[in-house]
Amino acid sequence: MKEILSTKNSMIKELKKLHKKKYREENQQYIIEGFHLIEEAVNANAKVKWVLFNQRGQLEWSAWLDDQPQELLVFVSDEVLVSLSELPTPQGIIAVLEMPVYDENLHLGGSWLLLDNVQDPGNVGTMIRTADAAGLSGVILGEGSSDIYNSKVLRAMQGSNYHLPVIRKSLEDIIDNFKERDIPIYGTELNPEAISYTNVSKVKEYALIMGNEGQGVSQKLLEKTDQNIYIPIKGKAESLNVAIAAGILMYHLECHE
Amino acid sequence: MKEILSTKNSMIKELKKLHKKKYREENQQYIIEGFHLIEEAVNANAKVKWVLFNQRGQLEWSAWLDDQPQELLVFVSDEVLVSLSELPTPQGIIAVLEMPVYDENLHLGGSWLLLDNVQDPGNVGTMIRTADAAGLSGVILGEGSSDIYNSKVLRAMQGSNYHLPVIRKSLEDIIDNFKERDIPIYGTELNPEAISYTNVSKVKEYALIMGNEGQGVSQKLLEKTDQNIYIPIKGKAESLNVAIAAGILMYHLECHE
Repeated sequence: MKEILSTKNSMIKELKKLHKKKYREENQQYIIEGFHLIEEAVNANAKVKWVLFNQRGQLEWSAWLDDQPQELLVFVSDEVLVSLSELPTPQGIIAVLEMPVYDENLHLGGSWLLLDNVQDPGNVGTMIRTADAAGLSGVILGEGSSDIYNSKVLRAMQGSNYHLPVIRKSLEDIIDNFKERDIPIYGTELNPEAISYTNVSKVKEYALIMGNEGQGVSQKLLEKTDQNIYIPIKGKAESLNVAIAAGILMYHLECHE
Repeated sequence: MKEILSTKNSMIKELKKLHKKKYREENQQYIIEGFHLIEEAVNANAKVKWVLFNQRGQLEWSAWLDDQPQELLVFVSDEVLVSLSELPTPQGIIAVLEMPVYDENLHLGGSWLLLDNVQDPGNVGTMIRTADAAGLSGVILGEGSSDIYNSKVLRAMQGSNYHLPVIRKSLEDIIDNFKERDIPIYGTELNPEAISYTNVSKVKEYALIMGNEGQGVSQKLLEKTDQNIYIPIKGKAESLNVAIAAGILMYHLECHE
């Protein structure tokens, strides 16, 4: 078991860079915080590179730590742990993980949520968590959507990225893939040709596109959909939050007896 | 039209205190930021005490400002505006409003969302916005739920507090009121006696209770409900975010043709 007590240690300096998206992508690694999430990642066989903990963490999760491959464990000082944490009150445990690699030719069967330029990390994370709960097959993030390894997205996802594939890919390519297989693609928008979601019949395979908080789904994608759907607004609100709208639509489209 | 150029001005010092809940409640006043929200408040006849704007705001919204009662308007320096703002990049306009006073004997007709100790400001604000969109009659905040005049709640509500009554009251008293009128009260929980929301028939009048992010609805309230309902989890997520759950339930319970 390694031991690192100084924040000036070169490995710690490298890991701290993972707070920035650029370095996460270069290294294909990211940081998660808190025991619950780390346990979830390990249970889902995510590729753990390091588990760092301070004295408090060592005491609190000693049984669990004993069960882990000892070459992954790093005992660190409180200062080191705080320097790696992005939480106001860090728990005593942090892990560094390798990003999953999905097969380029992964078969996109079942029902998929497609996020087009959704920018708020809380919205992206919550939608992935809801897709998991509703039983969708996976989530695809197109250009512009928030990086899922951002600490706010990770907190909002609550580990759902370990339960279903979350893939970054061009939505135009993905939509073509669905179209070739005659799988319906639903866009979301308010226009005269859109229909209320309650009139959409339930099917086993579909793709649902949710769009940017301000602009909605981009025009070039809406033109490729089979049907554009909306959620009726009965009161005086101008619109729904995009994550709420996604929740209502996914729970409607999936069959729940 | 008043003009205040110094952050040391006594009125500005007083208004700054409204960033704290304690002072908001003592003065029964609160601050909103951004033109869109202020316009919404004015259109809904909310009681505006002051509209403060800097030179940029004066240029950008001159036509609208001309239409307002001139005794409400306060031209302020950029420093003063920044000192009152809680946004990273303040727009050039801020308003001070008086909190609405609801009749103690307000008739609770129609459908109501009851929030029991919901703590996250974003969740509270989003649920009020969704209740508005879904067409509910109003929202009641019980003990412990976030203050709606917190700037984060105000941002998430997007003006829905000007569209439907949002009342702070003891939920136990409110539930007794509904019970006396034979209006069904739905709690939300996961227990063997709870039923799936898809099996709840739609009625015109009801109360739906959503609970704390961690603990759910408190036991003492669950004991008073007519029916406890849950949303099935089909995937591996442990739970849904409370605002997403509220959105799914409200859109299911309200009739939308």
